[in-house]
Amino acid sequence: MSAEVEEMLKRFQALKNVVGIIVIDNDGIPIKTTLDNTLSVHYAATMQTLREKARQVVLDLDGTNEFTALRMRTLYHEVMLCPKDDYFIVVIQKPCE
Amino acid sequence: MSAEVEEMLKRFQALKNVVGIIVIDNDGIPIKTTLDNTLSVHYAATMQTLREKARQVVLDLDGTNEFTALRMRTLYHEVMLCPKDDYFIVVIQKPCE
Repeated sequence: MSAEVEEMLKRFQALKNVVGIIVIDNDGIPIKTTLDNTLSVHYAATMQTLREKARQVVLDLDGTNEFTALRMRTLYHEVMLCPKDDYFIVVIQKPCE
Repeated sequence: MSAEVEEMLKRFQALKNVVGIIVIDNDGIPIKTTLDNTLSVHYAATMQTLREKARQVVLDLDGTNEFTALRMRTLYHEVMLCPKDDYFIVVIQKPCE
């Protein structure tokens, strides 16, 4: 997994306005992060519940379908969530001007 | 609300690859839809739970922040969710080629 994760981190870090990237395992534990520990743990736990809800909603609407990515806009920033098999990645961006 | 909703519907219908639009009240009931009744009710109920989860997650991370939009990609389509005060809009699109 490690090389793949490093590759992804590089790719996401190159995106415009990125303020943080967290790689989170399927138990909601941050395994790689560019943010401080407290914030990473907080983001990981809450984003894990959002990932699980999105997965359930997509499956509930069509048992053959699969949730592949999510982007959420808030007043202060945008959050991207990309699920993989053993982990998922959360990228926090400042909104584009 | 009605004129505002009609205006939004027009705007969303003009988007590329739109296959369905549902306007849903805060109780998860579809109040306007371009899909059949069964599918609209199913989408409305599940998307209401996703909207609520997104709202909670954003508030939990920062009590002064607010969830303003969500886009979810699945194997078969993309779903956009826009919350308003009294209702929210779900737009289902085929992924861009």
